[in-house]
Amino acid sequence: MLCHEVKIPPTPGGGYRITIGTGLLPTVWERMRADFAASTPFVVTDEDVVAAGHLSRLVGANEAACFVIRPSGEKSKTVDTAVAIVETMEKAFLGRDSIVLALGGGTVGDIAGFAAAVFKRGVPVVQIPTTTLAQADSAVGGKTGVDSSVSKNAFGAFWHPAAVYIDVATVKTLDERQYRAGIVESIKHGLIADSSYFELIEANIDAILARDTGALEQIALANCRIKGAVVEADPTERNQRRMLNYGHTIGHAVEAASGYGLLHGEAVAVGIVAAGLIEAEMGLANGDRLGRIRALFERLGVPRAKSGGIRPSELMDLLRHDKKAVHGWPKFVLIEGIGQVYVRNGAYAVDVPPEIVNSVLERL
Amino acid sequence: MLCHEVKIPPTPGGGYRITIGTGLLPTVWERMRADFAASTPFVVTDEDVVAAGHLSRLVGANEAACFVIRPSGEKSKTVDTAVAIVETMEKAFLGRDSIVLALGGGTVGDIAGFAAAVFKRGVPVVQIPTTTLAQADSAVGGKTGVDSSVSKNAFGAFWHPAAVYIDVATVKTLDERQYRAGIVESIKHGLIADSSYFELIEANIDAILARDTGALEQIALANCRIKGAVVEADPTERNQRRMLNYGHTIGHAVEAASGYGLLHGEAVAVGIVAAGLIEAEMGLANGDRLGRIRALFERLGVPRAKSGGIRPSELMDLLRHDKKAVHGWPKFVLIEGIGQVYVRNGAYAVDVPPEIVNSVLERL
Repeated sequence: MLCHEVKIPPTPGGGYRITIGTGLLPTVWERMRADFAASTPFVVTDEDVVAAGHLSRLVGANEAACFVIRPSGEKSKTVDTAVAIVETMEKAFLGRDSIVLALGGGTVGDIAGFAAAVFKRGVPVVQIPTTTLAQADSAVGGKTGVDSSVSKNAFGAFWHPAAVYIDVATVKTLDERQYRAGIVESIKHGLIADSSYFELIEANIDAILARDTGALEQIALANCRIKGAVVEADPTERNQRRMLNYGHTIGHAVEAASGYGLLHGEAVAVGIVAAGLIEAEMGLANGDRLGRIRALFERLGVPRAKSGGIRPSELMDLLRHDKKAVHGWPKFVLIEGIGQVYVRNGAYAVDVPPEIVNSVLERL
Repeated sequence: MLCHEVKIPPTPGGGYRITIGTGLLPTVWERMRADFAASTPFVVTDEDVVAAGHLSRLVGANEAACFVIRPSGEKSKTVDTAVAIVETMEKAFLGRDSIVLALGGGTVGDIAGFAAAVFKRGVPVVQIPTTTLAQADSAVGGKTGVDSSVSKNAFGAFWHPAAVYIDVATVKTLDERQYRAGIVESIKHGLIADSSYFELIEANIDAILARDTGALEQIALANCRIKGAVVEADPTERNQRRMLNYGHTIGHAVEAASGYGLLHGEAVAVGIVAAGLIEAEMGLANGDRLGRIRALFERLGVPRAKSGGIRPSELMDLLRHDKKAVHGWPKFVLIEGIGQVYVRNGAYAVDVPPEIVNSVLERL
């Protein structure tokens, strides 16, 4: 079992512990009861997680109030679902001594975290991620949110978890495509912060694809170390935390343009390739860095280019409406070497002229 | 013009300024533009405030996107209103550089503050209270919330304002009953924290009732000093902040039992009298403290007793479901002298046996 502490000073107790292991899930309930003895647990999960047997593994013979999100996936990530969760908690007479357990992938963590953030001015949330994406990324860092009828993540809060439990065995039940797409966020961590971690993934890609639990524990710990350090330095994304957005600006546009037919990690892979093309235009490329990244994505079996049906002009429009755009155009996170984010005048997200982006999208 | 700084360390910049004056409102827009130059303002108000002319006083000849809550009052304090505000902001293409201006009474501040807290993971809110209640209490302290279909304030967040502007001239347009009820929270501040402030209100009650702006500025400053100090010491109500709940536990029950026919301040006045009766039972009375408080409430023209139609058993039921109840019974804030909260074993809210509360309610 591996442990990592994230120190976010504003949280009660000054931080939270991430516990990583194989076959950890059946022990989480007792661990959580020991650490939060005065709290009444409420589980939020989705129907896929229930079908995979994870809910029974977590709860065992204990009594637990529960909300099962139906259907699973992005479609349910709405403010209506968050309202339904809060009202279910109220009807179960849960109070400010509640603790929400978010068991599932990124969507469950986002919805349950937001519901916990707004229930009676906020109760703690424990994140128990069960996908490669959520274990690498969304369970750590405190971003929560749900969509409105107008746009994605219109509602949200920074709500840091009280604890995170990562059982790498839970990803064994994921379908192959989802499993592989989630690994892209791990590769992103290597690209922005740690070249030896990138090399470790390159060297162990076969073990990772075979879902070897030793390899999975190793990358889970590296992900938490890297993301935890960035989040500690900048919990509410004023500057440095923006580096986690590497590949995401164009990635989000590609994801939306695909009608969410692409998985998030797949779209981010395309976005990382686009960032590599921008870096070449901006004189930040060295050696065949992009070739190496593309080769790793190819081994992983994720796309390296947008589908031909998506027009560059459509992506340019989406970029102009990016939620982080200022005066109608977003800034971009770039790297100048593997493991090394490009920082200009202290800023981790920099200006890139629309013409350069447009020409890159033409070739993507 | 008077100023007071509240230092809540977790907020950006480490605190916020409360500016108090008479006829301040027409200058607030320029002040706000100077202090938050990079932000795009969005005004949330209600139809009563618009009718009183305060919105035009605030905005003047400036262009401003705006959401007007209809109807005014508690009925609109729902999660649906908060969702409508967020979606209006999205449709106006407002981003994370927005700043929400909450212009109105406690309900407007609560709804607008909550919408700001959850819009794209949080944007700043400026509170511009226009009622005696909001100026004395709700605009300072960062509590925000809206009701669900199940209960009051089911959704909420601690979201400290970026600035507060109090124009005491705005209360001149309030109807007499609302005006007087709002003064109860000022009296509460004297009772829990400052006997000389209580005496100042007693001595100046005629000037206060005449809406003398000099007297109103003086009490606005005292309120901000007292509430600000409590909130600084305990921003998320772990213990000390609970003292602000004086008179509110039974007050909330009386307010609910009246079907919200009583105004909040009126119900709190009854709750303060009930607290005085409990103090007598618990051996905490000295002299004719309660008589003095009742006399001041009589001068103010607010109720000192529940209406005969409300049964004690109904209030006992409501107390058992109080949102701060633990194991089905709330704790109570009591005073042992004017300006002196009773603290037992370090706790600012203490156990009172249900039998004592029941006997007090029989006599209330």
